[in-house]
Amino acid sequence: MSTFGQHFRVTTYGESHCRSVGCIVDGVPPGMRLDESDIQPQMTRRRPGQSAITTPRDEKDRVEIQSGTEFGVTLGTPIGMRVMNENQRPKDYGNSTMDLYPRPSHADWTYLEKYGVKASSGGGRSSARETIGRVAAGAIAEKYLREAYGIEIVAFTSSIGIEHLFPPTNEHPTASTNPEFLSMIDTITREEVDSFLPVRCPNAESSDRMSKVIADFRDKHDSIGGTVSCVIRNCPSGLGEPCFDKLEAKLAHAMLSIPATKGFEIGSGFGGTMVPGSIHNDPFVKTPAVPTGATASNVQRPRLTTKTNNSGGIQGGISNGAHIYFSVGFKPPATIGQAQSTVTYTEEEGVLEAKGRHDPCVVPRAIPIVEAMAALTIMDAVMAQQARQATRSLLPPLPQVISVKDTLKADADAKAEQQTTTVDEKSNGHN
Amino acid sequence: MSTFGQHFRVTTYGESHCRSVGCIVDGVPPGMRLDESDIQPQMTRRRPGQSAITTPRDEKDRVEIQSGTEFGVTLGTPIGMRVMNENQRPKDYGNSTMDLYPRPSHADWTYLEKYGVKASSGGGRSSARETIGRVAAGAIAEKYLREAYGIEIVAFTSSIGIEHLFPPTNEHPTASTNPEFLSMIDTITREEVDSFLPVRCPNAESSDRMSKVIADFRDKHDSIGGTVSCVIRNCPSGLGEPCFDKLEAKLAHAMLSIPATKGFEIGSGFGGTMVPGSIHNDPFVKTPAVPTGATASNVQRPRLTTKTNNSGGIQGGISNGAHIYFSVGFKPPATIGQAQSTVTYTEEEGVLEAKGRHDPCVVPRAIPIVEAMAALTIMDAVMAQQARQATRSLLPPLPQVISVKDTLKADADAKAEQQTTTVDEKSNGHN
Amino acid sequence: MSTFGQHFRVTTYGESHCRSVGCIVDGVPPGMRLDESDIQPQMTRRRPGQSAITTPRDEKDRVEIQSGTEFGVTLGTPIGMRVMNENQRPKDYGNSTMDLYPRPSHADWTYLEKYGVKASSGGGRSSARETIGRVAAGAIAEKYLREAYGIEIVAFTSSIGIEHLFPPTNEHPTASTNPEFLSMIDTITREEVDSFLPVRCPNAESSDRMSKVIADFRDKHDSIGGTVSCVIRNCPSGLGEPCFDKLEAKLAHAMLSIPATKGFEIGSGFGGTMVPGSIHNDPFVKTPAVPTGATASNVQRPRLTTKTNNSGGIQGGISNGAHIYFSVGFKPPATIGQAQSTVTYTEEEGVLEAKGRHDPCVVPRAIPIVEAMAALTIMDAVMAQQARQATRSLLPPLPQVISVKDTLKADADAKAEQQTTTVDEKSNGHN
Amino acid sequence: MSTFGQHFRVTTYGESHCRSVGCIVDGVPPGMRLDESDIQPQMTRRRPGQSAITTPRDEKDRVEIQSGTEFGVTLGTPIGMRVMNENQRPKDYGNSTMDLYPRPSHADWTYLEKYGVKASSGGGRSSARETIGRVAAGAIAEKYLREAYGIEIVAFTSSIGIEHLFPPTNEHPTASTNPEFLSMIDTITREEVDSFLPVRCPNAESSDRMSKVIADFRDKHDSIGGTVSCVIRNCPSGLGEPCFDKLEAKLAHAMLSIPATKGFEIGSGFGGTMVPGSIHNDPFVKTPAVPTGATASNVQRPRLTTKTNNSGGIQGGISNGAHIYFSVGFKPPATIGQAQSTVTYTEEEGVLEAKGRHDPCVVPRAIPIVEAMAALTIMDAVMAQQARQATRSLLPPLPQVISVKDTLKADADAKAEQQTTTVDEKSNGHN
Repeated sequence: MSTFGQHFRVTTYGESHCRSVGCIVDGVPPGMRLDESDIQPQMTRRRPGQSAITTPRDEKDRVEIQSGTEFGVTLGTPIGMRVMNENQRPKDYGNSTMDLYPRPSHADWTYLEKYGVKASSGGGRSSARETIGRVAAGAIAEKYLREAYGIEIVAFTSSIGIEHLFPPTNEHPTASTNPEFLSMIDTITREEVDSFLPVRCPNAESSDRMSKVIADFRDKHDSIGGTVSCVIRNCPSGLGEPCFDKLEAKLAHAMLSIPATKGFEIGSGFGGTMVPGSIHNDPFVKTPAVPTGATASNVQRPRLTTKTNNSGGIQGGISNGAHIYFSVGFKPPATIGQAQSTVTYTEEEGVLEAKGRHDPCVVPRAIPIVEAMAALTIMDAVMAQQARQATRSLLPPLPQVISVKDTLKADADAKAEQQTTTVDEKSNGHN
Repeated sequence: MSTFGQHFRVTTYGESHCRSVGCIVDGVPPGMRLDESDIQPQMTRRRPGQSAITTPRDEKDRVEIQSGTEFGVTLGTPIGMRVMNENQRPKDYGNSTMDLYPRPSHADWTYLEKYGVKASSGGGRSSARETIGRVAAGAIAEKYLREAYGIEIVAFTSSIGIEHLFPPTNEHPTASTNPEFLSMIDTITREEVDSFLPVRCPNAESSDRMSKVIADFRDKHDSIGGTVSCVIRNCPSGLGEPCFDKLEAKLAHAMLSIPATKGFEIGSGFGGTMVPGSIHNDPFVKTPAVPTGATASNVQRPRLTTKTNNSGGIQGGISNGAHIYFSVGFKPPATIGQAQSTVTYTEEEGVLEAKGRHDPCVVPRAIPIVEAMAALTIMDAVMAQQARQATRSLLPPLPQVISVKDTLKADADAKAEQQTTTVDEKSNGHN
Repeated sequence: MSTFGQHFRVTTYGESHCRSVGCIVDGVPPGMRLDESDIQPQMTRRRPGQSAITTPRDEKDRVEIQSGTEFGVTLGTPIGMRVMNENQRPKDYGNSTMDLYPRPSHADWTYLEKYGVKASSGGGRSSARETIGRVAAGAIAEKYLREAYGIEIVAFTSSIGIEHLFPPTNEHPTASTNPEFLSMIDTITREEVDSFLPVRCPNAESSDRMSKVIADFRDKHDSIGGTVSCVIRNCPSGLGEPCFDKLEAKLAHAMLSIPATKGFEIGSGFGGTMVPGSIHNDPFVKTPAVPTGATASNVQRPRLTTKTNNSGGIQGGISNGAHIYFSVGFKPPATIGQAQSTVTYTEEEGVLEAKGRHDPCVVPRAIPIVEAMAALTIMDAVMAQQARQATRSLLPPLPQVISVKDTLKADADAKAEQQTTTVDEKSNGHN
Repeated sequence: MSTFGQHFRVTTYGESHCRSVGCIVDGVPPGMRLDESDIQPQMTRRRPGQSAITTPRDEKDRVEIQSGTEFGVTLGTPIGMRVMNENQRPKDYGNSTMDLYPRPSHADWTYLEKYGVKASSGGGRSSARETIGRVAAGAIAEKYLREAYGIEIVAFTSSIGIEHLFPPTNEHPTASTNPEFLSMIDTITREEVDSFLPVRCPNAESSDRMSKVIADFRDKHDSIGGTVSCVIRNCPSGLGEPCFDKLEAKLAHAMLSIPATKGFEIGSGFGGTMVPGSIHNDPFVKTPAVPTGATASNVQRPRLTTKTNNSGGIQGGISNGAHIYFSVGFKPPATIGQAQSTVTYTEEEGVLEAKGRHDPCVVPRAIPIVEAMAALTIMDAVMAQQARQATRSLLPPLPQVISVKDTLKADADAKAEQQTTTVDEKSNGHN
């Protein structure tokens, strides 16, 4: 479907060659300042052709708010948004080689199998223009999350081809045990990331190496993939709706819905499968005092946090207040300059050769899209949890046996001397 | 939420210590033979304590169908299913160390943060018993998929710790380019997988090595993770609902909703990010004649298929009829026998030590759960696509300019001599 | 579908002859006291065979909570509930006349047309037993609404056949302008309603007349319909989700999903279409001081209320804090003792005659079902609105031009002398 | 929410004073001819100011398709549609009396209570302009239903104030037993209805009387309500998704979501509650041969139909193939020219007087909106049922004990002599 989210619902429309692309965002909180200037920056970041030196002030892809605000304030009603397409006329049908060949590893063939109608743009909505609505909606979610919680979402390039920002090692099969990685995600900002345009890998040396990889593949008329890592800071605890809508499950859904993605990892990820439980487990510690200034006052930090963070900020499908971080793998772009032996729609063998300039790597441009989908996912989870808490807050308080917060204190005081305790778990009892 | 799927909707209930666990499955096609014997085998496969030698006929976890069938045939109404819990009485509250400590990397703490109520079983529904409803519902989906399309879903252990069935190499950073892997997923069956109990890795040598890893961690009172790979064969083309409900996005959602999962990859996955586009692209070939007997007559195979399958059977979010395959990473179990320094709910430092027998690795038992979630995802996608096709089939046919299937044939005939063609793509036009 | 609600989600299962009927309720607020004794009373009220004199302590339809509570407190996880069926064995297929004839105005025929499978119970889930899950779930919703807001939901019989509690007159084509009706719904309780068993019309004279109508139709082996009216008191303002999920739209949906219903009216209803706008409009007045004791402290009553209440407590699809009231029409039961000329499934003409004792009027028994569906609807709307308010409350306050509550006060002070004002509405501007 | 439908999903946006109003329609079948000319006629029918004589070629409210079609054919992707607002600038805030007073029985007050933000247009999306998106989307649904099934949806004015087209009588408390009504809905067309502009009551005498009522209320600066009746012809059997999404429940939801509605009745409706079951029941008859030409070939009519149609084409929540008909009550418009004593937002008493021309009755203009919502409801139900049938059609056929269609024939032959049969129903068994 073209709708994402249960509470903060985004519905998008638009192909490459139609009149416009856009979206409707339903469930936006009323009473929030919002105008186009809140949305345009991320729209511009996802435009192609950016580089560290030139950064042309791109006047394309201007978003227009259609509804849902008055005097620059949200009304609580759906926000319609629209971006005009420049190239509105579909090519005449039947006179292009694109009508002969389904492009390998594009969506031309599967869209035809699914819908039985061939769009002139090949794979209908599989074009990158479809992501415009996501980025526009994500910017609204992000503004709320920032204003309400001080949430910060920053994505960056973590690998291009075989060049990794934090390559897996025997010691650190996953970056989640690597102090350098943990330190970076503590503070990394979008400004820093963008200071490493065009690669957006926030490390000069890695960025250079990645840049060379991309240039190399461009010169060979070939393409290459890579990974984007993303951190979400200041997220409240309690987000995620088990069983089926665990927070990592929703993030995975969101990320794998981005064109060209092939994989998703939360926290320690696949590397974490190689780490012993005794190291992988994140013991609890008392939450240190909040650093001054950093976080918005609305964020009530939980009393406990974890010493390590292999969990990636999510345990049992629910956020624990620590940084949430994850990675997303992007395949090499399917459009390459090299000739490809393939067959036509009508099963004739032939050779397809694409002319023109092609993007040899989508990873740097994908960064604002990953941030947008992260924002939409967190926003939806925030609203679900706020609803639960609000609902609960109206109930009469219960006697203390139930509420751990109130009662375990006393309980623990009584047992304070006891420092080493054992849990008599019967593992067979819970399976 | 506790519901999965739009068309084939599964809603589950139940914690470890309550009366029963179970589910309601809404949207089951009417007129299908179904009784408990269709469901019990997968229930039994997910039970713990199985080994290649003993395989005790486990009489636990008997599923009871409550509704939705008569005389062993589905009515089209919701199917209620129930499995009794054996250990129904929650422990008295307040006298166990589990009430003192939130277990590290368990869901005890986050459930408390989310719901504000501490269940005696710790993390409420985060227990493995919650997966019973998934497996029961998955068995129904699977039966339909098998009867209607001959779909086969087989999962197996592909790594335990650092031991991989197909370790990444410079030549094959991803198994998707490895002929041995491709050959294995062509034919692997559940029987073969189960012949390698308790590890369920269908290769004698790898299985032995993995078995040793697990034993080693068990002996150290530690735990270890691993990956499950899964193949779906005979899936019709056209499944998946872009933009947001691409088939890989739904699979990712489904898999990351399984307890203890940390990552998901489709097709070439993260390894595929290192493969050049010229190799990664899957050129089209004419579909070979169907092998006799193998597939159900209902599966109309598309005219084209791909020579390679780095896509993992999905392009542009839509299945193309090739094998769908993916991997899921599982973390080391959080319950370990070693003492862990952590803090109590009331912020007192202490050492937590778990007694009893613990499963040092969940991967082998996760296999039927991965299969169940795959079946639920495919079933839902099948129903969505069947609905579209049925709807379309009632429309009057259109003149030929639109339907590629009818018209490109003639078109192609006219251009048949032209063997090398060029596509004049302006990559900037679709971004 | 078998699911009702977005936030407070009820999924039901069960036919007449299967093992059990029941439901799963997802989204129940955590931390609420709940056990079977909260649910059983309404279950018992919906049982047949009740009368004012005997009221046999009915031991049937005992509800069992399966999950989601511990120590009598909700965990926030799904609550499974089950009621055993007594008559579990479907009749042998093929030897009953019910297998020959689709019963007129029953669901036998349409269920067969829909599902293509004939259940031995005729219309599958169209049996009254299906409503058990609704009543069980409604009792949970009701408990929350009562504890959190002091909401009271009371339904009563308002007509049987041509006998009306408040018959329409020229002066009062709708009860909404009738002071007697308005006075009754101010205070009516379930106890009063049940003191008029078996009819449940809270007026001795009307009750007698209705009782005679029912007896008369019973004696003629015929059946008769009637209407149930329902009032919801102490509902907070702001409930209802325009445009499509206006509160009255959701109530209408809920009520028309009850078996045998034919109509729904909110507030002035169909009678209100005959009342001039000058009378029908509900002018605003300042809300009087809250009567002591009556309402729960959580209910923050809006500053304004309406002098009359033809709106039925809902304006623009959103509750305004006044009593919500509505009526539901029930058709005469389709099962009658008289012979009916009809045709068999195989198109043979014949005469169908039903033996046994039949309920000549379902209206009195429908009352707890109407209350349950009202509770489920309001609960869902409450949670949606609580989510919105919670979300908004975290935003920084806006300067006063926007917030009417803060600013119009000053504005109005300045214009205080001006007592008659005119609105320059261009009616063409908003169409 | 601003979304209607599960399979054919309409999401709307837009207030009175924003840039545009519009919608996104997701789930439109691919391969259907569609351009603006399919949509504009109903848009124009809902414009105000129409009369039988003038019918000015109204150039306002031109719909623009943004996406989802190419070369006039639907792609299966979401269709974005937009209609510009003419009066885009909201009035400066604070200088109008509309900012002082919440208009009685408008949505000004409840929108403020709900969202906490006061839109300059008063009740945000409660304006009639919000219905534009519904009508645009409904026109697409309607086109499909017509092309696929020959479905015809025709609404007409059935009462204005106390003037009824078919006034209830002792003999016919409901029009459903009135042969004249049944005959009219057999054949009534939109052209006939529009030949009675401006009232749209297809009976010269009634139309005149209603016209006078409206004129009378207009002259008194007052307003009046009325009812719209609607018939859906050629609807396939099997539509509607019990238990909660019975077809009449979805229709009721759809209709009560239209601004100013107060009631809904299906088939015999409230009048039917006064009809004895022996008359109200609809006995089955063999379906007569299809009249030549009338119905589309796709409509497979069920073998049985009903002799009478008090059910309104729906039994047990599922369509039976007979005409579906229902009525919707509309209240008198809240905006009247008379002075109204009320209070300001700040609780000051005063008198509100609306200037300008006001529509004294919305009923005639509501007709295309009722038709649109009916089309959206039926379309969604059609897609759900097509999905079920398609899913089932792939299952292997079952032996005959189950399939009534196959087996009862033989069964009935054996019992053919037996013409009067009895059903031994134990009414207590199914409650």
